[in-house]
Amino acid sequence: MYSLEFLASKLGGVVKGDSSIEIAKIATLSQAVEGDISFCTNPKYLKQLSETKASAVLITEEALDFCTTNAVILSNPYLALAQVMELFDKSPKPTGKIHSKAVIASSAILGENVTIEANAVIGSNVTIGDNVFIGACSTIDSGTMIGDETIIKSNVSIAYDIQIGSQCVIHQNSVIGCDGFGNARGEDGSWTKIPQLGRVVIQDDVEIGAGTTVDRGTIDDTIIKKGSRIDNLVQIAHNVIIGENTAIAGITAVAGSTTIGNNCLIGGQSAITGHIDICDDTIVGGASNVGKSITKPGMYYAAFEAKPRIEWGRFVARISKIDKLMARVKDLEKKIK
Amino acid sequence: MYSLEFLASKLGGVVKGDSSIEIAKIATLSQAVEGDISFCTNPKYLKQLSETKASAVLITEEALDFCTTNAVILSNPYLALAQVMELFDKSPKPTGKIHSKAVIASSAILGENVTIEANAVIGSNVTIGDNVFIGACSTIDSGTMIGDETIIKSNVSIAYDIQIGSQCVIHQNSVIGCDGFGNARGEDGSWTKIPQLGRVVIQDDVEIGAGTTVDRGTIDDTIIKKGSRIDNLVQIAHNVIIGENTAIAGITAVAGSTTIGNNCLIGGQSAITGHIDICDDTIVGGASNVGKSITKPGMYYAAFEAKPRIEWGRFVARISKIDKLMARVKDLEKKIK
Amino acid sequence: MYSLEFLASKLGGVVKGDSSIEIAKIATLSQAVEGDISFCTNPKYLKQLSETKASAVLITEEALDFCTTNAVILSNPYLALAQVMELFDKSPKPTGKIHSKAVIASSAILGENVTIEANAVIGSNVTIGDNVFIGACSTIDSGTMIGDETIIKSNVSIAYDIQIGSQCVIHQNSVIGCDGFGNARGEDGSWTKIPQLGRVVIQDDVEIGAGTTVDRGTIDDTIIKKGSRIDNLVQIAHNVIIGENTAIAGITAVAGSTTIGNNCLIGGQSAITGHIDICDDTIVGGASNVGKSITKPGMYYAAFEAKPRIEWGRFVARISKIDKLMARVKDLEKKIK
Repeated sequence: MYSLEFLASKLGGVVKGDSSIEIAKIATLSQAVEGDISFCTNPKYLKQLSETKASAVLITEEALDFCTTNAVILSNPYLALAQVMELFDKSPKPTGKIHSKAVIASSAILGENVTIEANAVIGSNVTIGDNVFIGACSTIDSGTMIGDETIIKSNVSIAYDIQIGSQCVIHQNSVIGCDGFGNARGEDGSWTKIPQLGRVVIQDDVEIGAGTTVDRGTIDDTIIKKGSRIDNLVQIAHNVIIGENTAIAGITAVAGSTTIGNNCLIGGQSAITGHIDICDDTIVGGASNVGKSITKPGMYYAAFEAKPRIEWGRFVARISKIDKLMARVKDLEKKIK
Repeated sequence: MYSLEFLASKLGGVVKGDSSIEIAKIATLSQAVEGDISFCTNPKYLKQLSETKASAVLITEEALDFCTTNAVILSNPYLALAQVMELFDKSPKPTGKIHSKAVIASSAILGENVTIEANAVIGSNVTIGDNVFIGACSTIDSGTMIGDETIIKSNVSIAYDIQIGSQCVIHQNSVIGCDGFGNARGEDGSWTKIPQLGRVVIQDDVEIGAGTTVDRGTIDDTIIKKGSRIDNLVQIAHNVIIGENTAIAGITAVAGSTTIGNNCLIGGQSAITGHIDICDDTIVGGASNVGKSITKPGMYYAAFEAKPRIEWGRFVARISKIDKLMARVKDLEKKIK
Repeated sequence: MYSLEFLASKLGGVVKGDSSIEIAKIATLSQAVEGDISFCTNPKYLKQLSETKASAVLITEEALDFCTTNAVILSNPYLALAQVMELFDKSPKPTGKIHSKAVIASSAILGENVTIEANAVIGSNVTIGDNVFIGACSTIDSGTMIGDETIIKSNVSIAYDIQIGSQCVIHQNSVIGCDGFGNARGEDGSWTKIPQLGRVVIQDDVEIGAGTTVDRGTIDDTIIKKGSRIDNLVQIAHNVIIGENTAIAGITAVAGSTTIGNNCLIGGQSAITGHIDICDDTIVGGASNVGKSITKPGMYYAAFEAKPRIEWGRFVARISKIDKLMARVKDLEKKIK
C-alpha cells in the first residue's frame, strides 16, 4: 500500500484530486477496482478512462477532460507506469545462491552474489560478473564473459568467447553466438561450411527476447550496442551491427553484414536484407521488406493490408490491367491527333 | 492387425468391398503396399487414389468413383484418419516415473502418475496435476500450475506464476511466460524496461508448437482459450487473447493487446498488428499483414504470389506508371472538350 | 603463422607479389593490419580492397586492378577463404569424453570417441556414431540414430525414432521431430489432434540452424537431403522434402507436404505454401510468398521494397485509382466514336 501522494512525488507528477488515498495494486482501466491505480497512455483508451473504477490514474494534462477519478498528471505516463510497476512487481528475485546441481568448470571465475540455477552448465574460463543471474538449464560455453547484474533466463545457449555487457537481460531459449550461415558453393553445387571465427559483442543494458538467435561474426564481430532492445524470435545474422537504443520487434530477420543505426524502431515480421546500412532514427513499419540502404531518417513502409478475399483478388487484377489501359490511351492519343 | 470391419465400426463408416481383410499398418496412397490402409482427404490426390496399392482406403462418398480397392465411406475421412492413426501410434508413452536426475523443489505439489524426465527443473510451489508428462531439461518456475494430462516436451521454459490447463501439449523448446516487449522511451532515446506483472493463462486442450513464445501480460494476463492450436515459431505478445478453437500456423507474429476471436484460422508467416480485434470465424491467408480490426467473418488476404524475376519487376513498374497515365488521360479529356 | 607461399599452394592459387611473407591471422579488408590476410569476394568491396592494410588478399583475376598489396589469385576466393579460415579456427574442439553429468540410457549404443557434454539426456536405444559431439542440455529421445562425426550443439531437442546422417551440424535450441501441425476439425469447430507417426530423416552433410524446427511426418517421413543448409528459425512442416544442396535462409516457413528440389536457394523471411513442388535450381528472393508450384528453374520474387511513408501511401493509392481511370478512358473512347 502506497499513498497517492507518495507515488506522485516519486514520479514527479502533480495530483488532481485526493492525494491521501491508499493504492493497493495496479490494474488496467477496464479491469481496475477500488484501491487500484491505473493509467492511460494511448488516446484509444480515453473512453475507458472516463468509465474506469480505479481510485487513481496516471495521465497527461490532455487526458484530464476524460478523467472522473483522482489523477497524477505527468508528461510521460508510460515512463511513470514503469516506475509504479516496479513497486508492485512480485516476480521471484535472485537468491545469490549457486544450486548444487549447476555444473561449473573449475576454471570459471564468478563474481559476488551470483545466482546459478539447477542444471545450468558453465564452461571453462567463463567470467561472470557480480549479481548475475543464470537460469536453469542454460549453457555458457568456454571463454565467454558476462557483465555485472546481467540476467540470463532458462534454456539459453551462449556459445564460446562471447562478450555480454552489464545489466543485460537475455530471455528464455535464445541463442547467442551460433554460427553464421556461411557456406561457399562448389562448382557441383555442394556447400563448404565457412568457419565462423568472430564473436558476438553485446554492450550494456541490452535486452534479447525469448527464442531469438544472434549469429557470431565470420571474421569481425556481430555487435549489439548499448541500450538496444530485441524482441522474441528475431534473427540477427553474422556481422550485423545494431546501434544504440534501437528496438526490433518480433520475428524480424536482419541478414548478414547489415548495419542498423541508433534509435531506430523496426516493426515486427520485417525483413532487412544483407550488406546494407540503415541510418539513425529510421522507423520501419511492421511486415516491411527493406531491400536497400536507408540514408534519410524517417518512416518506411512496404506492407499491404489484408482485405476481404474478393477485394484482394480485384486489387491484384487491377494492376495487371494497366498495360492494356496504357495501350488504349495510346490509341486514343493517335486518334485525336 | 485389425480387420477392416473392426475399423469401419470404430469409425462409424460403411465398408464398400471386402470387410474381412486384415490391416497391418497405415500408409499414404503412393507409399502403401498390400495390407495397408490409406486415405484420401484432398481432391488433389484423386489420381493417386485410383492407383494406390493399399488394401483399403478411408474416403468420402464422392471419391468412390476414383477408388479401385476396398473402401470405408465416411463424411469426414480426415477425422477418421486421426482415430485410425491413434490405433497405430507407436510413440513412447509416459512411464509415470520421476527420473532420479530431475530437480524438484520440495514445495512443489505433484499429482498422481506424473512423469518427469531427467534434468527437468521444477521450481518452488509449482502444482502439477495427474498424469502430466514433463520432458527432459524443461524448466517450470515457481508458482506455476499445470493441469491434468498435460504434456510438456523437452527443453521447454515455463516462467513463474503461469496457469496451464488440462490436456494441453506444449512442444519442445517453446517458452511460456517470457516478459513482454515493454519499454518506455526517455527523452534521450534510451529505454526503461516496463516490468511485466501479468500471467499467461492457457486453458484446457490447447496445443503450443515447438519454439513458440508466449509473452506474459504487462498487468492483465495473456490468454489462450480452450481448444486452440498454435503452430511452431509463433510469437504471441503480451496481453493477446486468442479465442477458442482458433488455429495459428507457423512463424506468425501477433502483436501486443490484440484479441483474436473463436474458430479463426490464421495462415503461416502472417503479421497481426497490436491493439486490434479480429472477430470470430475469420480466416487470414498465409503471409498476410493484418493492420486493422476485422469486424466481419470471412477470408482475408494480403499476399502477392512470387513471379519470375522479370515479370515481377514489370509488375512493380506498372504501378509506378499510373500517375503518368492519369496525366495523359487528363490531357486527352481537355483536348476533347 | 603460415607463409603466403604455403597458403597459395594449399589453395591452388597463384601469388602476385611477395610469396615469402608470413601471415599471422585473417581479417576483413577494412579491419586488417600488417601481417593479416584478407579477401574480396564481392564487387561492393573493391574500394576497400584498394585501401586495405592487409599484407595479402585472396581475390579473382578481375579484382587485381584494385589490389595494392600481395595477392593470391583464385577462381573462387570465397571457397578458398573457407579453407584459410579452417587453419585459423580457434573454436573449442570435441574432447572425446562423456561428461559425468550426462544422463545416458543403458540401452544407448555409443560409437568411438563420442563427446557428450554435461546434462545432455540420451534416451533408450539411441544409436550414436563415431566422433559425434552432443552439447550440454541437449535431449535425444528413444530410438533415434545419429551418424558419424555429426555435431549437435546445446539445448537441442531431438525426438524419438529420428534418423540423422553423418557430418551434420544441428545448431543450438533447434528441434528435430516435433509433431506436425495436424488437426482434424469437428463440426462444432473443435480440433482433434492427428497423431504424427512419421519420422524425420536428415541425410549426410546437412546443417540445421539455431532455433529451427523440423516437424516429423504424419505418416511418411519429413526428409532433408544431403548437403542442404537450413538457417536459423526456419519452420519445416510435416512431410516436407528438401532436395540436395538446397539452402534456406532464416525465418522462412515451408508448409506441409511441399517438395523443394535440389540446388535451390530460398531467401529469408519467405513463405512457401503447402502441397506444392518447387523444381531444382529455383531461387526465391527474400520475403517472398510462393503460393503455387514452380516448374521452371529461375529466380522468383514477390517482395515490395520499403518506401518512405508518404510515398508508400501514394503507391497503394495509385492502384485503387485504376478502376476510375479505366472508366474515364472508356468514356473518352465513346466520345471519340
